[in-house]
Amino acid sequence: MKIVFLGSGNVATHLACTVQEAGHKVLQIFNHRLNGAVELAGKLNCAFTDKINEITDQADVYIISVKDDAIGIIAQQLNLKDKVVVHTAGSVDMNVLLPATPNVGVLYPLQTFSKDRALDFQSVPLFIEGANDITSETIKRLAQSIAHFVTVSNSEQRRILHLSAVFACNFVNHLYDLSNGLLKEHNLSFDALKPLILETAQKVQQLHPHNAQTGPARRNDQQVMTKHLQLLSNNQPLQFIYQLLSDSIVKSFQ
Amino acid sequence: MKIVFLGSGNVATHLACTVQEAGHKVLQIFNHRLNGAVELAGKLNCAFTDKINEITDQADVYIISVKDDAIGIIAQQLNLKDKVVVHTAGSVDMNVLLPATPNVGVLYPLQTFSKDRALDFQSVPLFIEGANDITSETIKRLAQSIAHFVTVSNSEQRRILHLSAVFACNFVNHLYDLSNGLLKEHNLSFDALKPLILETAQKVQQLHPHNAQTGPARRNDQQVMTKHLQLLSNNQPLQFIYQLLSDSIVKSFQ
Repeated sequence: MKIVFLGSGNVATHLACTVQEAGHKVLQIFNHRLNGAVELAGKLNCAFTDKINEITDQADVYIISVKDDAIGIIAQQLNLKDKVVVHTAGSVDMNVLLPATPNVGVLYPLQTFSKDRALDFQSVPLFIEGANDITSETIKRLAQSIAHFVTVSNSEQRRILHLSAVFACNFVNHLYDLSNGLLKEHNLSFDALKPLILETAQKVQQLHPHNAQTGPARRNDQQVMTKHLQLLSNNQPLQFIYQLLSDSIVKSFQ
Repeated sequence: MKIVFLGSGNVATHLACTVQEAGHKVLQIFNHRLNGAVELAGKLNCAFTDKINEITDQADVYIISVKDDAIGIIAQQLNLKDKVVVHTAGSVDMNVLLPATPNVGVLYPLQTFSKDRALDFQSVPLFIEGANDITSETIKRLAQSIAHFVTVSNSEQRRILHLSAVFACNFVNHLYDLSNGLLKEHNLSFDALKPLILETAQKVQQLHPHNAQTGPARRNDQQVMTKHLQLLSNNQPLQFIYQLLSDSIVKSFQ
């Protein structure tokens, strides 16, 4: 398939490189900041533009991968009649694309992307949706050409997937960051936690997360929890997070 | 070395099997519930008892691996003169062992252990402490015979390590569990999150957790966060956790 990308952020970068490696042809990168478009187009050896009216009409699929609130704004400026237009966002309804074409859809990769980190895209679960059969079929073919796990899901299911990913990824990473701050404050190295962090994630690949739970709150060990809260007495926000999450664990085992 | 274990929980089980595999001899398992002692002794092919006055005096090192508040209680009932007695807890002072012997210490493995999950103990960071040089040397030799990363640290540092591990492991696992609950409520499978969970943990093996942060709070995307809070309107505890952690992320990037 011939593809145009609108956006050049983390998701666009990983996805564009992956589709090109899978044998599709990326014709052009559009980005409202030109240097973003230039950078990604350089990786793909394709055309680029920062002007929406210069977007080529020669592609089969247009993939919009920009900030959530910009998706609808861009779609309103597109006129792509019989083309397929998809976005890649977890929490945006498919229908915001309808000003551009009736052939709208979604290709949502449930993963965390950073530009400076390689990733095996084949193992990224893709959740897809299409407004009509032909569009769905096109998106499905594209998705299956780049990843193993492709699931059809509607916009409501996708919102829940995205929300649960915020808990399991974004909030989790922030907890890593908070631990790092604690260790740093006491001249201890974050390296000490790395095997633990990895094992915690690996455990729930097999065990149910409820059965994998360990720690003072799991044992309702009030003595340790009180000591920990005392250790955090100079850091009220952290104390508050400790209390809230410990209470939540204790409750989940009552 | 000849070793006695007091306790037969997750840590005792992993540690006892590991020291035996490393060529040490586990002489006996003590546990206040006999069936726990029997089970672990069966794995090691050694003696067992549930009576504290039946603990053998033939070992070099006694490893107490029981609930935090039971460590001192057990130590008060031991009289092990010139032997080395250690505990394995993150948040318990070494000195609670002094009623048993002057040769007290700590061997704290910074990892999450579940009985039904195998683990490469060599990669577990061990934090050790000893009350005097000979004791420290004995603990160090034992520790280095079973793991690659052995670090001397005092009781205060160990408490901080344990506290940060609660954030990076126990709270993290609870977030996995909360995501699982959300998905289940909407008939979606936790399997969808597994690659994301693994990648989130793998990312911070290389990237600094602050630089690895992604998601709506990282972008201060109020529109998405408001939608997510609405989706959680029937679940106030979850809504509260969402708000608190999102605020904490936003603040950490200001």
